[in-house]
Amino acid sequence: MQSWKLSEIAKLLGGQFVGSDDPVITGAAGLDEAVAGDLTFVTTVQLLAQLKNSGASAVLIGPDMETQVPAVRLGNPYDGFADFLALFQTPLDRVFPAGVHTTAVIDPTADVSAAACIGPHCVVGPGCVVGAGSRLESHVTLGPDVCLGEDCLIYAQVAIREGCQLGNRVILHSGTCVGSDGFGFLPSKQGLKKIPQVGIVVLEDDVEIGSNSCIDRATTGRTVIGQGSKIDNLVQVGHNVKIGCHTVLCGQSGVAGSTTIGNGVAVGGCASVGDHIKVGDGAQIAGKAGIISDVGPGETLFGTPAIDIKESFRLFASLRKLPELLRRVRKLEEIQNKPVD
Amino acid sequence: MQSWKLSEIAKLLGGQFVGSDDPVITGAAGLDEAVAGDLTFVTTVQLLAQLKNSGASAVLIGPDMETQVPAVRLGNPYDGFADFLALFQTPLDRVFPAGVHTTAVIDPTADVSAAACIGPHCVVGPGCVVGAGSRLESHVTLGPDVCLGEDCLIYAQVAIREGCQLGNRVILHSGTCVGSDGFGFLPSKQGLKKIPQVGIVVLEDDVEIGSNSCIDRATTGRTVIGQGSKIDNLVQVGHNVKIGCHTVLCGQSGVAGSTTIGNGVAVGGCASVGDHIKVGDGAQIAGKAGIISDVGPGETLFGTPAIDIKESFRLFASLRKLPELLRRVRKLEEIQNKPVD
Amino acid sequence: MQSWKLSEIAKLLGGQFVGSDDPVITGAAGLDEAVAGDLTFVTTVQLLAQLKNSGASAVLIGPDMETQVPAVRLGNPYDGFADFLALFQTPLDRVFPAGVHTTAVIDPTADVSAAACIGPHCVVGPGCVVGAGSRLESHVTLGPDVCLGEDCLIYAQVAIREGCQLGNRVILHSGTCVGSDGFGFLPSKQGLKKIPQVGIVVLEDDVEIGSNSCIDRATTGRTVIGQGSKIDNLVQVGHNVKIGCHTVLCGQSGVAGSTTIGNGVAVGGCASVGDHIKVGDGAQIAGKAGIISDVGPGETLFGTPAIDIKESFRLFASLRKLPELLRRVRKLEEIQNKPVD
Repeated sequence: MQSWKLSEIAKLLGGQFVGSDDPVITGAAGLDEAVAGDLTFVTTVQLLAQLKNSGASAVLIGPDMETQVPAVRLGNPYDGFADFLALFQTPLDRVFPAGVHTTAVIDPTADVSAAACIGPHCVVGPGCVVGAGSRLESHVTLGPDVCLGEDCLIYAQVAIREGCQLGNRVILHSGTCVGSDGFGFLPSKQGLKKIPQVGIVVLEDDVEIGSNSCIDRATTGRTVIGQGSKIDNLVQVGHNVKIGCHTVLCGQSGVAGSTTIGNGVAVGGCASVGDHIKVGDGAQIAGKAGIISDVGPGETLFGTPAIDIKESFRLFASLRKLPELLRRVRKLEEIQNKPVD
Repeated sequence: MQSWKLSEIAKLLGGQFVGSDDPVITGAAGLDEAVAGDLTFVTTVQLLAQLKNSGASAVLIGPDMETQVPAVRLGNPYDGFADFLALFQTPLDRVFPAGVHTTAVIDPTADVSAAACIGPHCVVGPGCVVGAGSRLESHVTLGPDVCLGEDCLIYAQVAIREGCQLGNRVILHSGTCVGSDGFGFLPSKQGLKKIPQVGIVVLEDDVEIGSNSCIDRATTGRTVIGQGSKIDNLVQVGHNVKIGCHTVLCGQSGVAGSTTIGNGVAVGGCASVGDHIKVGDGAQIAGKAGIISDVGPGETLFGTPAIDIKESFRLFASLRKLPELLRRVRKLEEIQNKPVD
Repeated sequence: MQSWKLSEIAKLLGGQFVGSDDPVITGAAGLDEAVAGDLTFVTTVQLLAQLKNSGASAVLIGPDMETQVPAVRLGNPYDGFADFLALFQTPLDRVFPAGVHTTAVIDPTADVSAAACIGPHCVVGPGCVVGAGSRLESHVTLGPDVCLGEDCLIYAQVAIREGCQLGNRVILHSGTCVGSDGFGFLPSKQGLKKIPQVGIVVLEDDVEIGSNSCIDRATTGRTVIGQGSKIDNLVQVGHNVKIGCHTVLCGQSGVAGSTTIGNGVAVGGCASVGDHIKVGDGAQIAGKAGIISDVGPGETLFGTPAIDIKESFRLFASLRKLPELLRRVRKLEEIQNKPVD
């Protein structure tokens, strides 16, 4: 078990060691879950009060905070906590051993950096490029002509289809498929005729995609996930979708074909965006929403069909009064219809 | 084709052979689908009437039932039917051949029981433990330090990330990912900064998880699926979620980060539970519901935002009267505004 | 880069070359995305006007259309465009190299056609049959006694469980699971008892299934996807479901156990159909709908619970007037209650 004196952690994080005690820290956890030996963090003065119910031995606090608990004061305590957590990560070399595993199948025409790691049973197709520092865990398939930049992490059982292009520092979690055929068929007398999907997928620098998600290749041209965007598990991104930079798609959300999503957008869990729609920069789409028309920049939507979240909650509150309203109107009608004596 | 006389089946299931005919049984099916040679079952006296439309040659009935069809009487006919079905299962040895396949890659520091089966192209990482009777089908990846108990069944292309712990008799179907990174990022000037996810996933005894589901590792500490809980296909369980015992999550449902779900809860297909929510024991969440606040024990909810299912259906019935109500109120207003002669 | 004169393309597609220019075509794209060198297409006279804003060098047009842009006139321009796209596909041999890869593990009792391709690290179990022209990419697992017809394409990391049967020309995209256990449990004193799932899955000719979808095996008998039906990514099809022919299930939709869906049905993205439901031929289920009762042939439904789509939108429009209606009724009541002077 690793351990650090709190004063050492202060130095590591570039913060100010506060208090007289200098406890030994062996772990990290949020306020509710922390036990003795853990470092925790608080982001607001309000949360400071909850420290006395926490088992934490020390805390990262912000510039204006005071506490009796041994502390490190930092510009951004949550950010410092993230840096501290990194110390507990399993070393990359243990998950992705160095070199090319003997069971990997690498096409002789592939250009794999000597500084890349290719794990057991991986398959790297003809014409692929794998940049320095990029690592494939196991059972990864790179189809023909796939291009990976530097320092990508590709976890087990990821499939990347022919011609797709990844930037640098892209992370793909287990089971995700990049570049499967878009879903396009033409009705014909013989049934549904497949429209060939001959485009590709481009994942720009610093994109991260969770497990078992699907990013479909374009019919023609490119499906694009912009720089720094993050996609959770079980997310569907249809063909020819363009997603901007620093946008977040939460678990089980979906974006249908040819839709364009701006920068800094947040799509909540299980939300769905229909096809051929434009979502403006900074829009917030609440969990489970169903978007069937364009969304302006900065709008916050909820419901299906999705509308402004405040109106949506107002409508819901009104709806709960509707059974009573029906009774009230009936009463008004009875009075109306009562014969005047 | 296997076959049994009905009287033999009565003995196998510990039931009472009823009737004079003793037909040869070669299959099993529900009432609607059964054909000659099939054994079926009925669970209520009401269903007995449907037997005459069924092609079944024999039936499992409950203690108080009578029928002209050759039958076996049992305390619980459905339970007996399940036991009978087990006779038709492909033998485990045919799906998971004994021993360690020559193409499996097993780290020398892994502790794999001599009574475990490791199928073709599996990868067992450093420090792993695989208990007696546990079986890995093919293309399974166990990351570093994964610990499996006894008699687990891990189907093809399952990925279990570093440090995760499985109890005994855990079943994971193809393509499921256990222990991928939780979805946690911090906004920063340089974009979204990854919060390291250094916790693990614990799957307790008798947990079963369907295909292509995702159970994310905790940020710190543990994501837990409690003893005997069953999770269907394409289900998302976020980081730091705690699910109790004997709870059921149906297909395409999702539970967001840090939510706690009690024991004996049923979450319907495609239902979603938001983050940091508590769901009490025995709650029933209907299919497609969206839970955005705490749920008390035993509550039954529907809709988005989810409310008591009876109120939800009442509101929906009222809503269908709303267009007519708008007309009725307009009429009242017109009368109101009519000048008194 | 491939290139064709437009007049050559006219011959290839069996269309009529129109105009005096005969540009060199090197690509293909929709109206909005096309650039110089691209061939595009228009399907309606209305869209012809947009041609002047398109960068396309040439266009496929319908029988009654005229344009100044170099064109090829065809009975069905979209159909012709699909045929033209096929020229840009990566050759199958590059994705699925011929023959059986040395790392594939094929049971000696399997019957693999000499004209089949089995890619690296595939596993073909005992008793399997793989027909001529069928191709497995990599990391595919065929469990015992799986039967594939001719000319199937099975992409990386597909798992097909024991006994399942595929027709001819079936396409399965990466990560899809066919034949995992249906989700069936019986409550008992010891917890949830597993009901053995001893049926199979049948995928008829020309079925295509996207990435990371799940088609569960039947409890007894067969789960069936009918001829020519197309299923998108992340779709769940429960045990004992029967889906007709030429039916389309869009991304993230789901069909619960024992439901029957007719021919030519369209199920929108993220729509859910409950268990034991019948959906008639030609029904249209809009995206995100939740079906909880039978659907007649040709019906078009939306919402949860789903109702006729026109009524659904009418109700939604009425709902947006509800807060105002509440005020109006209050006013009527005030007038009613005002003491008559």
